Amino acid sequence: MNKGRLEAFSDGVVAILITIMVLELRVPRGADLEALRPLLPVFLTYVLSFVNLGIYWNNHHHMLHAADRINGKILWANLHLLFWLSLVPFVTGWMGENHFASLPTAVYGAVMLLAAVAYTILQKMIVAEQGPNSRLAAAVGTDAKAKLSLACYVLAIPLAFVNQWVSDGLYVFVALMWLVPDRRIESRLNQRAGV
Amino acid sequence: MNKGRLEAFSDGVVAILITIMVLELRVPRGADLEALRPLLPVFLTYVLSFVNLGIYWNNHHHMLHAADRINGKILWANLHLLFWLSLVPFVTGWMGENHFASLPTAVYGAVMLLAAVAYTILQKMIVAEQGPNSRLAAAVGTDAKAKLSLACYVLAIPLAFVNQWVSDGLYVFVALMWLVPDRRIESRLNQRAGV
Amino acid sequence: MNKGRLEAFSDGVVAILITIMVLELRVPRGADLEALRPLLPVFLTYVLSFVNLGIYWNNHHHMLHAADRINGKILWANLHLLFWLSLVPFVTGWMGENHFASLPTAVYGAVMLLAAVAYTILQKMIVAEQGPNSRLAAAVGTDAKAKLSLACYVLAIPLAFVNQWVSDGLYVFVALMWLVPDRRIESRLNQRAGV
Amino acid sequence: MNKGRLEAFSDGVVAILITIMVLELRVPRGADLEALRPLLPVFLTYVLSFVNLGIYWNNHHHMLHAADRINGKILWANLHLLFWLSLVPFVTGWMGENHFASLPTAVYGAVMLLAAVAYTILQKMIVAEQGPNSRLAAAVGTDAKAKLSLACYVLAIPLAFVNQWVSDGLYVFVALMWLVPDRRIESRLNQRAGV
Repeated sequence: MNKGRLEAFSDGVVAILITIMVLELRVPRGADLEALRPLLPVFLTYVLSFVNLGIYWNNHHHMLHAADRINGKILWANLHLLFWLSLVPFVTGWMGENHFASLPTAVYGAVMLLAAVAYTILQKMIVAEQGPNSRLAAAVGTDAKAKLSLACYVLAIPLAFVNQWVSDGLYVFVALMWLVPDRRIESRLNQRAGV
Repeated sequence: MNKGRLEAFSDGVVAILITIMVLELRVPRGADLEALRPLLPVFLTYVLSFVNLGIYWNNHHHMLHAADRINGKILWANLHLLFWLSLVPFVTGWMGENHFASLPTAVYGAVMLLAAVAYTILQKMIVAEQGPNSRLAAAVGTDAKAKLSLACYVLAIPLAFVNQWVSDGLYVFVALMWLVPDRRIESRLNQRAGV
Repeated sequence: MNKGRLEAFSDGVVAILITIMVLELRVPRGADLEALRPLLPVFLTYVLSFVNLGIYWNNHHHMLHAADRINGKILWANLHLLFWLSLVPFVTGWMGENHFASLPTAVYGAVMLLAAVAYTILQKMIVAEQGPNSRLAAAVGTDAKAKLSLACYVLAIPLAFVNQWVSDGLYVFVALMWLVPDRRIESRLNQRAGV
Repeated sequence: MNKGRLEAFSDGVVAILITIMVLELRVPRGADLEALRPLLPVFLTYVLSFVNLGIYWNNHHHMLHAADRINGKILWANLHLLFWLSLVPFVTGWMGENHFASLPTAVYGAVMLLAAVAYTILQKMIVAEQGPNSRLAAAVGTDAKAKLSLACYVLAIPLAFVNQWVSDGLYVFVALMWLVPDRRIESRLNQRAGV
């Protein structure tokens, strides 16, 4: 079984999700700054979700590049990941249009958590298929960054009902952690994880 | 004639359909649980149709992977399948927004039946093109699962006007039958089919 | 310059156009047959445009398969074709929602005519790039079918203001001419064209 | 790391953006010329943005064709470009529906400027990865056309508040400069840049 079509299909879905989100940025009636102002929270959530989907695409790219073999279970684990990612435009729009209210902020975290869990499952299946001595198993390692991301999302969901800005801050922190390629943070995290 | 572009085009259409469906999940006005509640039936039909489209993509992937040659007729048989699949977002939205009323439930079954018939036609044409001794002809076999799916859809359409929950149950049953890789069910089905 | 990305980009655009059209089939409020009835003309125009876009994809597939070289001008001629095809969802929706009124019927024909002209230009540029003795130049031949299609569209535009059903009949005739692989019609057309 | 998936993902995003824009051309209620008239400015901005996205796709195609190696930073620089391009449908719709008012015209220029800056960054990173003696470094040269485009956008933004037609004229000029392959203009520009 070849991985080309799996990559192409995933690329297609993520490309569509990343562009469909922009439809939530509805063209305003007026032509002045007042007309743009209500779009600001929608725009900010759009940037956050664009970066998050970009991170998934990037990591998916690297993971499958290092994989040599796939199987039927991996196809379904990939569709499972795409399912949760497909809900990102909905929760992005809901959080943005309600100006980061508590419940939409918590639901955003829940969808991001479930996507992260789905990614972890997919990664485990792909690593298992390659065998324990594959270069992918070595590259994944203890994966401290992924564990920290999961912990942030688990924390952010209940915290949204105490103070949603803490949750939103955690979402931005997770995105920046993956976006900024800070070698020192990565190596420090790996040291704490005992690598 | 090479099959690469046929696969790429089909992947593109299915990727778009699977993500366009989520647009039917309209961002609600309120930010509380009350605002989410009317979306529940729409969400459930979305899950069902996501799984159904995922099954088609998966089976399409396997079938074309085993095919070595295609022809002009196969291109049109494939477009015929994509036509019925393109109506899935419409019937999904109609059934979900009308809380599984009788007529939308029956029409959902009709579109799924016509897609299944189109898939069967496509498969026959591809098998014929490969020749009787090809590995695809052997892999397809008596195809008891496909016949049972067709029978379920034929039953579900009139039953929707008696009790639509029976029809909806049949749709879920067909999806689970393809999703869960239960070897025992498959082999038992094959035994009854006289294999 | 390789043709792979040109094919992939064109496939992407046509796949999106063919599925975006279905969004014009708005999910109706009611759950009875009355609710579906106003959608009938929209559905019929959807079928017509689906077939037309399918024909373009099919012919594009065959033409580029026979081509060995492309250049910068061909990229732009291809984008020119995609521009007119991108207007198909708009004119399809306009004709369908206005129950085949005169002006929308004429504008539909105008967009189809301009797409056909753009295809002819693209074909000429591709044939020129391959050289006069290429297999593509031989395959294209006198192209009686393409000339008849152009003539039908030229006729249909003014006729829409006399009787739009004649124009709609011409659109269906052109689509069927490409869809039905009737060898006798084709050979007779070629004979009249002096082949 | 291979460039195939980067090309495919970029193609997907641009193909979707170019077709999503056409959704802003809302199907009008009436069936006469009066119903079409308010769509004229939306249609004109659609043509302008279609050409602009086509230019980006064309240049992206040529640049990556000449590149042999990519890295992780290039993936993110490419996503950065796609982010600004993803805002093109929004600013196109805003400018078109407000009949080229000052602020939307300025914002259109700002998004085009940021996309052009993102393209320049991406190009620098790709050239750096190939090494100073690569064929890409030679092909890019002094890039007078890109510098003139950036200057036009920088000028057009403040000028939109004086006379927006000057800004719109500058946008059309930049598009034509890339679209029309006028060798004389190019060579004259290169002479002034001291090549």
